[in-house]
Amino acid sequence: MKLFFGEIHDNHATLNEEESHHFTKVLRGKEGDIVYITNGEGTLAKCEISQLSKKKVEANILEIQENFQQKPYYLHVAIAPTKTMERLEFFLEKATEIGIDEITFLQTFHSERRNIKIERIEKIIQAACKQSLKAYTPKVNSLMKFHDFIDQDYQEFSKVIAHCRDDWDRENFKTYLSTQPSKIILMIGPEGDFSAEEITSALQKNFRGVSLGTQRFRTETAALQAVFAVDWSFRPE
Amino acid sequence: MKLFFGEIHDNHATLNEEESHHFTKVLRGKEGDIVYITNGEGTLAKCEISQLSKKKVEANILEIQENFQQKPYYLHVAIAPTKTMERLEFFLEKATEIGIDEITFLQTFHSERRNIKIERIEKIIQAACKQSLKAYTPKVNSLMKFHDFIDQDYQEFSKVIAHCRDDWDRENFKTYLSTQPSKIILMIGPEGDFSAEEITSALQKNFRGVSLGTQRFRTETAALQAVFAVDWSFRPE
Repeated sequence: MKLFFGEIHDNHATLNEEESHHFTKVLRGKEGDIVYITNGEGTLAKCEISQLSKKKVEANILEIQENFQQKPYYLHVAIAPTKTMERLEFFLEKATEIGIDEITFLQTFHSERRNIKIERIEKIIQAACKQSLKAYTPKVNSLMKFHDFIDQDYQEFSKVIAHCRDDWDRENFKTYLSTQPSKIILMIGPEGDFSAEEITSALQKNFRGVSLGTQRFRTETAALQAVFAVDWSFRPE
Repeated sequence: MKLFFGEIHDNHATLNEEESHHFTKVLRGKEGDIVYITNGEGTLAKCEISQLSKKKVEANILEIQENFQQKPYYLHVAIAPTKTMERLEFFLEKATEIGIDEITFLQTFHSERRNIKIERIEKIIQAACKQSLKAYTPKVNSLMKFHDFIDQDYQEFSKVIAHCRDDWDRENFKTYLSTQPSKIILMIGPEGDFSAEEITSALQKNFRGVSLGTQRFRTETAALQAVFAVDWSFRPE
């Protein structure tokens, strides 16, 4: 069952240019093939390829599903990029498979990396969506300064900052999740954690301090664990 | 806070040969340095380096903790190696950070990889232990045929097989974990899943079929999720 990105119209769908090239040149697809096409916004269409060209592949829609596998929560993770890009990329792939809706890269006081290639990240996320059959593509925001991020207005969202500093009371993340917050903004710090000044500022902006446990985790492990925990807390028992 | 592997005696500890070399030649450590040494079996000692040689570094024990961060469960994961070693290695690193006690590599009907370098895997696991300060090193077993694995006698262990086939009733993994089984053997299938014959055989050997959810996961994502879930289910709320 192959999934492609494209535009979905009333009764036909069109693969976007890159996907058209992939379908015709890499996969050697042909007319009559049955594929799945998503707009990345929740619509999944089962289609039969009707017309081929290198730049534009068209298909007739056989079946259509709106809000395909829509999750009962919206999770926005803000994370400081790790020193090794490979670790961040692995996190992004896994987070996409498990369930994440939006990601922002934070420039923090202790950040080891201050640049990021958004295009490459979008490719990794698209590949993960295709592999795990996701009809919702996570939104990727570019690198943002910590203070600009916390200054934004996030109506309706429950805002949390995960850090490891014992100088502040922190709520156990499992206790926090037991209240089933359905719209979450979660900040994960860099190796070396958020600075005291950053934590103070976030708390002043009504972020809640949470703890992901007593163990020492790498940044991407902490983030992955948080994504997993949110998804798990919404799973039926 | 640096962690090393070694032998722990009554009041002194010795780094093993590789760690001695690492300490003296790579880290340029010296007498008087304060380090942590573990035997990989639960003992963690805070030590002061007393004597240096390339092959053998000795240290005096300042403080000692037995059963350091012992988990309330024992998790043995049996997994078919993924086609790409990188994915398996990432799983091993993350599973070690989060909490796994034993790992066996399975040779299954649909396995894409039929060889594995145990030495390399042990290195990855050791590095993860050092990075995340673990005093228990997960045990690594070599590649084993599926049927040999299920034929073994696992007294006291709760045995489960995670698969995706709807032809069999499967228990929701979250429901299963709500009973807090504390000694778990969990089999995770390859891409392409276990074969019908393998599932039938496992059920006959009293493995319980469980489901990790309705989504399509890569092998290592499914395994990682299961490790997270076990650990999470034992966390206090």
